[in-house]
Amino acid sequence: MIDVIIFGNGNVATQLAKAFLKADDVQLLQVYSRSKPTNFFIKNNINTTNDIKKVKNAAIYIIAISDDAIAAFSKKLNFKNKLVVHTSGSKPITELNCDAHKGIFYPLQSISKNKKISFKNIPICLEAENTKDYLLLEKLAFSISNKVYAINSEQRKRLHVAAVFVNNFTNHLYKIGKDICDTHQVDFDILKPLIVETAKKITQLTPLEAQTGPAVRGDKKTIENHLQLLDEKQQEIYTLITESIIESKRLKTED
Amino acid sequence: MIDVIIFGNGNVATQLAKAFLKADDVQLLQVYSRSKPTNFFIKNNINTTNDIKKVKNAAIYIIAISDDAIAAFSKKLNFKNKLVVHTSGSKPITELNCDAHKGIFYPLQSISKNKKISFKNIPICLEAENTKDYLLLEKLAFSISNKVYAINSEQRKRLHVAAVFVNNFTNHLYKIGKDICDTHQVDFDILKPLIVETAKKITQLTPLEAQTGPAVRGDKKTIENHLQLLDEKQQEIYTLITESIIESKRLKTED
Repeated sequence: MIDVIIFGNGNVATQLAKAFLKADDVQLLQVYSRSKPTNFFIKNNINTTNDIKKVKNAAIYIIAISDDAIAAFSKKLNFKNKLVVHTSGSKPITELNCDAHKGIFYPLQSISKNKKISFKNIPICLEAENTKDYLLLEKLAFSISNKVYAINSEQRKRLHVAAVFVNNFTNHLYKIGKDICDTHQVDFDILKPLIVETAKKITQLTPLEAQTGPAVRGDKKTIENHLQLLDEKQQEIYTLITESIIESKRLKTED
Repeated sequence: MIDVIIFGNGNVATQLAKAFLKADDVQLLQVYSRSKPTNFFIKNNINTTNDIKKVKNAAIYIIAISDDAIAAFSKKLNFKNKLVVHTSGSKPITELNCDAHKGIFYPLQSISKNKKISFKNIPICLEAENTKDYLLLEKLAFSISNKVYAINSEQRKRLHVAAVFVNNFTNHLYKIGKDICDTHQVDFDILKPLIVETAKKITQLTPLEAQTGPAVRGDKKTIENHLQLLDEKQQEIYTLITESIIESKRLKTED
């Protein structure tokens, strides 16, 4: 049985707590939160505290608070010889400013508090200072997910920026697609099967292999026609990504 | 029973033929192809011809050839009082240069010849010159898909460019994500669940509601840090899309 304490009251803290409650071999001993605990914690009779001095003894302490608060918060902790981890994708392990064993427990997913999610398919990226701690984190991670990866702080920084491209920026392209539809009374629903198919395709092909469209075909006429249908900002984005696709194809051909 | 003849031997022609063979109330009378018919047509004993004079009588003739060949090819057809349609997303109905009733039968999906696809969820966008023809096309479309839309040529042009954003450009963002991973020995598989989740999310939320990340949070520090990790082209794309997300948020707040 791994005893776990979570610091935090937000989306990641709540979703992790839900997952740990269902897991075998994990006991969620306590949740620390400065603010009033959410209904979920109350309903499930989870021991909560807002007093750092009343935090119990556990094997792993998980700091699941906003990225910029981690450094200052971790300074308050005094868990010598215990394992303290944070859940941030963008902060290094050195962000933990306490006298404890340090590690990272980073679930890579866009997590909302109230959306039902299954952790089973959410990749969890782990880092620790020594093998013993890593193995303990690994056991905890496998108790809620099938996808566990060893990722160091340098790699995690890159993973985080890559996630911005494939998640945040992709979503903005959906938004532009919807804008174009809306201005011409076209139902955006028509595009949704294509959007889902495009995402699923790269589970079978590399993105380079999966690339289709006028840019990769070198179809200048269609590109010209498309540009005439767009507003200035859309044109800029269209042009830049088209150039980038053409460049990627050139590099591929040279290989 | 609707008698149908397909012109073409490519991805769309093949997938449409497969779907019609399975449909009730549709008979695929013949496939016309200049080149040798693919194995699929031979295996399924579909009547094929490469002689335009031997094309049979049918209710609907579907031109499923490359966009730029439609105008010249349709000139050769002589099907007065018959319905001739093309399957292109980017060409208007006027691209059909023949003395016949004209229409559009445009399946909006990225279609590969050998990938198994189910037409059931692929939106089919229809256009016709009169109601009778429209109703006939609608019947044909519903025989293979549950998602049928009336879309005129102006709207279809916009839909096509919107599809470039949500499909071709999105795929290129996946490619950039993979490049970032590859240069730091990070397994791109870690990002795949996030990619699929991002696509599925907009079936429940609008893209504007679904937007997350440093740009929409106004998190300048993270944006700065990210830019330092990217090469020049990646930086350009990161900056332009970040600006566009910030602008979208500003317009939303003003609403």
